[in-house]
Amino acid sequence: MTTPYTPPEIWTWDSESGGRFASINRPIAGLTHDKELPVGKHPFQLYSLATPNGVKVTVLFEELLAAGHADAEYDAWLIHIGDGDQFGSGFVEVNPNSKIPALMDRSGETPVRVFESGAILLHLAEKFGAFLGAPGDRPEMLSWLFWQMGSAPYLGGGFGHFYAYAPEKWQYPIDRFAMETKRQLDVLNRNLSERQFMTGADYTIADMAIWAWYGQLALGRLYSAGTFLDVDSYEHVQRWAREIDARPAVQRGRMVNRAFGEPETQLHERHDAADFDTRTQDKLAPDAS
Amino acid sequence: MTTPYTPPEIWTWDSESGGRFASINRPIAGLTHDKELPVGKHPFQLYSLATPNGVKVTVLFEELLAAGHADAEYDAWLIHIGDGDQFGSGFVEVNPNSKIPALMDRSGETPVRVFESGAILLHLAEKFGAFLGAPGDRPEMLSWLFWQMGSAPYLGGGFGHFYAYAPEKWQYPIDRFAMETKRQLDVLNRNLSERQFMTGADYTIADMAIWAWYGQLALGRLYSAGTFLDVDSYEHVQRWAREIDARPAVQRGRMVNRAFGEPETQLHERHDAADFDTRTQDKLAPDAS
Repeated sequence: MTTPYTPPEIWTWDSESGGRFASINRPIAGLTHDKELPVGKHPFQLYSLATPNGVKVTVLFEELLAAGHADAEYDAWLIHIGDGDQFGSGFVEVNPNSKIPALMDRSGETPVRVFESGAILLHLAEKFGAFLGAPGDRPEMLSWLFWQMGSAPYLGGGFGHFYAYAPEKWQYPIDRFAMETKRQLDVLNRNLSERQFMTGADYTIADMAIWAWYGQLALGRLYSAGTFLDVDSYEHVQRWAREIDARPAVQRGRMVNRAFGEPETQLHERHDAADFDTRTQDKLAPDAS
Repeated sequence: MTTPYTPPEIWTWDSESGGRFASINRPIAGLTHDKELPVGKHPFQLYSLATPNGVKVTVLFEELLAAGHADAEYDAWLIHIGDGDQFGSGFVEVNPNSKIPALMDRSGETPVRVFESGAILLHLAEKFGAFLGAPGDRPEMLSWLFWQMGSAPYLGGGFGHFYAYAPEKWQYPIDRFAMETKRQLDVLNRNLSERQFMTGADYTIADMAIWAWYGQLALGRLYSAGTFLDVDSYEHVQRWAREIDARPAVQRGRMVNRAFGEPETQLHERHDAADFDTRTQDKLAPDAS
């Protein structure tokens, strides 16, 4: 990358390139090995990891349960993406895109798969009629929900990759994606200067989706980039991010399928509400605060 | 970018950097000038440009009209993103994210805004009860619809930018994003090897969304990258892309708000079905074939 380059006529795969995630980035889809997925007792089987995309869904499950939707009980199984679990045969059947999170909804007569965090949020919120906001606000809620899906790849796959994970630091891509990430933070900040939540007075799945990425970025949890992006200057994002972060369901949701960070913040698998209180060596913890 | 680089403690904006789109990429949101948006006679007012994200929505409008939904009549106004129209006060009111497409739905008592192409597709499809697929397929349709939103930034903002628009060619980002784009094409190819359309037997908004990016990529229309990405090797994507491309509504949808390419393919604004047949200097054309 540091020398002038003329692309070949046809791109070919050099499996040595790719930086920190070279071993799990591939130009082909499909399974690499046979591995069935575990199935627990609850109506919902989640296969995930506590990255921002994973946290969105565990936060929603915990919010649904906290709101009294006892039918939202779920088993959350850990997918080690660094080990290639997402390329196992069972996982690929649930998500042919080999990304977490992936959900099997076994609440009906026929189990159905749902993949992509945004689709899972909308599927569950519609199933329970919860966290969708007022009916008249649906267009605004959908707009912000989809905004997150189209925007976060610039934060995660763009800024985060080149700032934190690429084999070297290069100015052009860091500038490109830092600028876009700051623009996105400013879009949110302006909206939240006029509203308690993204779509108005109601806390919705759009907040959960955006908080998992931009709220946690604002709280300094992603890429050690808080100072670089001057996240404290987005005051309305800060207010909103802290308000959501203080919710007990959000604190539980952050712990589920967490297999990194301080041991007391990790709950590798979640099968029961009591799991949050069961202290074992690598499982469980009190709510982080 | 061609020399070793240590990021500063706090990122600052160098407005000289940024390549081909430097003039319209900014780290702050909001309006830059006062400019009202025009409003026509139809229930739907679309403000857009015939990029893949714009084409998704004009294809859906044309499909709705072709399917007999006369209430889907729309005015399509051209937004010159190269001239900064998306930063005008009227546009920012409809889409605070300053991206096309943006929609004002004036079909009800109170006009409502909808932004993000995926949200607009879902909003319209639900309003007309069309192109959603079978009810039982909704989770699968939503999964693929959201898949497009989360995936295409790697194609457009990643691969397309570094392969076609960045000020120089650098191997690392081209390799990174070419690999991901090819993986995405392979995900689609495997799915379409078993299904006529993305979610099964029904042509849905998920097809329209994915076709606008990946179908057109497969047809060699994006970034002059057909050979580089060996798009012909994705045979099932090719079959599906050609089948959708042959639909008259798709051919019309591609023309709307098109302000680039051969003059006969351009229809800068669309206010009436007859606009496609009215030949003026810079307006209209026969269906491209």
